[in-house]
Amino acid sequence: MARPAPLSGFPEWLPGQRMVEQQVIDSLRGTFESWGFAPIETRAAEPLGELLRKGEIDKEVYVLRRLHAEESEAAGTDATEAARQLGLHFDLTVPFARYVLENAGKLQFPFRRYQVQKVWRGERPQEGRYREFCQADIDIVGAGELPFHHDVEIAQVMTEALAALPVPPLTLQLNNRRLIEGFYLGLGAEDVPAVMRAVDKLDKIGPDGVRDLLLAAGLKDGAATACLELAGIVTADSSFADRVAALGVEHELLNQGIAELVAVVDGAADLAGDRVRITADLRIARGLDYYTGTVYETRMESLEHLGSVCSGGRYESLASDGAHSYPGVGISFGVTRTLGPLFARGRLSASRDVPTCVVVALPEEAMRPACARVAAALRRRGIAAEVAPSAARFGKQIRYADRRGIPFVWFPGEGLSGSVKDIRSGEQVEADAADWAPPEQDLRPRIVVTDSDGD
Amino acid sequence: MARPAPLSGFPEWLPGQRMVEQQVIDSLRGTFESWGFAPIETRAAEPLGELLRKGEIDKEVYVLRRLHAEESEAAGTDATEAARQLGLHFDLTVPFARYVLENAGKLQFPFRRYQVQKVWRGERPQEGRYREFCQADIDIVGAGELPFHHDVEIAQVMTEALAALPVPPLTLQLNNRRLIEGFYLGLGAEDVPAVMRAVDKLDKIGPDGVRDLLLAAGLKDGAATACLELAGIVTADSSFADRVAALGVEHELLNQGIAELVAVVDGAADLAGDRVRITADLRIARGLDYYTGTVYETRMESLEHLGSVCSGGRYESLASDGAHSYPGVGISFGVTRTLGPLFARGRLSASRDVPTCVVVALPEEAMRPACARVAAALRRRGIAAEVAPSAARFGKQIRYADRRGIPFVWFPGEGLSGSVKDIRSGEQVEADAADWAPPEQDLRPRIVVTDSDGD
Repeated sequence: MARPAPLSGFPEWLPGQRMVEQQVIDSLRGTFESWGFAPIETRAAEPLGELLRKGEIDKEVYVLRRLHAEESEAAGTDATEAARQLGLHFDLTVPFARYVLENAGKLQFPFRRYQVQKVWRGERPQEGRYREFCQADIDIVGAGELPFHHDVEIAQVMTEALAALPVPPLTLQLNNRRLIEGFYLGLGAEDVPAVMRAVDKLDKIGPDGVRDLLLAAGLKDGAATACLELAGIVTADSSFADRVAALGVEHELLNQGIAELVAVVDGAADLAGDRVRITADLRIARGLDYYTGTVYETRMESLEHLGSVCSGGRYESLASDGAHSYPGVGISFGVTRTLGPLFARGRLSASRDVPTCVVVALPEEAMRPACARVAAALRRRGIAAEVAPSAARFGKQIRYADRRGIPFVWFPGEGLSGSVKDIRSGEQVEADAADWAPPEQDLRPRIVVTDSDGD
Repeated sequence: MARPAPLSGFPEWLPGQRMVEQQVIDSLRGTFESWGFAPIETRAAEPLGELLRKGEIDKEVYVLRRLHAEESEAAGTDATEAARQLGLHFDLTVPFARYVLENAGKLQFPFRRYQVQKVWRGERPQEGRYREFCQADIDIVGAGELPFHHDVEIAQVMTEALAALPVPPLTLQLNNRRLIEGFYLGLGAEDVPAVMRAVDKLDKIGPDGVRDLLLAAGLKDGAATACLELAGIVTADSSFADRVAALGVEHELLNQGIAELVAVVDGAADLAGDRVRITADLRIARGLDYYTGTVYETRMESLEHLGSVCSGGRYESLASDGAHSYPGVGISFGVTRTLGPLFARGRLSASRDVPTCVVVALPEEAMRPACARVAAALRRRGIAAEVAPSAARFGKQIRYADRRGIPFVWFPGEGLSGSVKDIRSGEQVEADAADWAPPEQDLRPRIVVTDSDGD
């Protein structure tokens, strides 16, 4: 068998990188749980009909077929067949909506959940864009209604969660769809979606291009200028409200949006700091149609070209079963999208490649049971330990540890006594496996952050 | 949208069940890491050609197709096309073999890894058999060679890992392929695989049926009797060796197999107890062709009809890249296969449905920021806390906690002081959020084991 090649778009990590990813996921999980979010996982596959409700992304779906399925099962030519087929989920929101409807009678609302899973999209791979990647989502969903204050809470939870991660500084960019829609309505815009689509192209076609589109959408020249001025407002606090007011536009929806955004920005600012900054950024609109109020995006310092690594917002109806509609607010952190580029640049690694803290050296094969008792005594006190694989000369056994970054080698004496060597410093001390412990920072692999790109 | 129905074979858990599953996986991970196993994850998809190497299970594979793939991509009629297509992995061994070959230059051998992931098989669903399920694998793989003592170690690690799980008592059944092959060769069998296939049918067709097959495979009557006697040997210690010797068969491979099995049984017995029992069970052969020495299976008390929930063995060649072959030994625990039937019977649940330990009651909406500061003070000390969603009357807020199984409600006073009520006992005490802590057993959701089936 020849050496296999990686599959483009399906990233895999070396064990040290996977340990970093696990610590990142553990950290997210710790924050989410401390705020009362309960975990769920949903199956990887959904009926294709469910996945294709939002027409625009249908081309990205992976369809499943059993290799030896009957012809009728594999064909899937008409709409009913398509609805019965299964596809891999492309996000965690569509399956969550289905899960909420399916289990509504067994869940308590408002329902706070987090979900950390792989998703799949058949897109063309590029940096930060994968075909298989891991997302970490939190959502709060109500039955019938969901108070606005949860919009503030979601921003707070994610700010706290992101601030604990070993990644470059992040900027959480906040906006509100009511604010921008109210502003456009106050300007007399008749086709609000067209105005929104035009402003959304600012990065691609520049202000003059957007102005042309706005005029084509029926706005007067002054109104187009006001739209561009609104999109240019970025503030680190709620002072954006005064700048919007200075543009002189009046609309009830605008006022509501401003009040909501002030509350979210002020609420998140309490938890922000050097690791996560907060901005009101009135250009952010989020492409997906279902957001109706607060919207969140997040940029990572020095890797802004990746786009948003953590996004979400308020939706008035996640799902509806006739009896209830389920409004919600949520945000999704791109685990792979954030870590992948940092791994590729050598900016994030583990202090060693294995969990092992101590290798117990093996003087001769017959001593394996005695050495195993030393390792077991260490493990019982939470110190990861393994016995050397062979009774090679000690230099080779030390190299076994060194190659893996394992900091300590134990040389057994009588019973649980012996001596333990820090192979980095060469320091060796007498010790008893019943009470010796490594320094706290050596107990487990640590995440090592390198500030500039490696080679 | 109508209420969606579950998909047969794709189990999903309620949040409390998912918390149980997470604790089980955390426990496995803790044991595996303490023995020095490093984590990896592999992509969900492999080239179909890789997946179909073992011809017998090809019908179970889910093939992937991008919904709008070009015709040429979707067709997959000839062998080259098939090799390029992707399918979902059906176990964690095939992708691990590929990962080892792909990363051989970056890994240190012997390489000890664990891997906890979903796998997919398009089989007909039944109890304990799913189309999507989670497996937890450990393997130790060498480059060129791997000493036998790792067979003992794998049995020890899994015995320790299983003993920590909140499941019914388990019996680890050990055997050795060299032992049974050597025995058949010593009896003069010419078609050893045919003998093995015959004995493997003991459960289905009974001893008389097996005897007929053995005679048809060319064994004499006495030899057939000896085969049936060997298959009947089950011992809780290494005394099986004497019983095999009493059958009077001689072969070098048999002697080697007996010595290995004695070592594995004795080694694992040190870690066994009431939770996990060890047996040498000379009927166990494992269907997969690649096992060459030690084989492991595991039965769960009162749920023996599920078959083996934890299986593996020694393989002389996991993979080969020309320069090296990679022998290994490993075992795979069926997380879903074990937990699913226990959840269905109501035998395993969580003490509450959410991670939250304390709900901070909200006297009026204007006090939300003050209540949030109380919750934050609790969280900073590791106590999961959330503020009540609305300033309803306190009875309703207490019901919010009660419905979720949250044990404590905090009634705020000045600053971080207030009083905290255990809503199970009704006991209420003055407390300060800067230093109050719940009893240790209430801090996190606990796993609740019910010994008999629920209704």
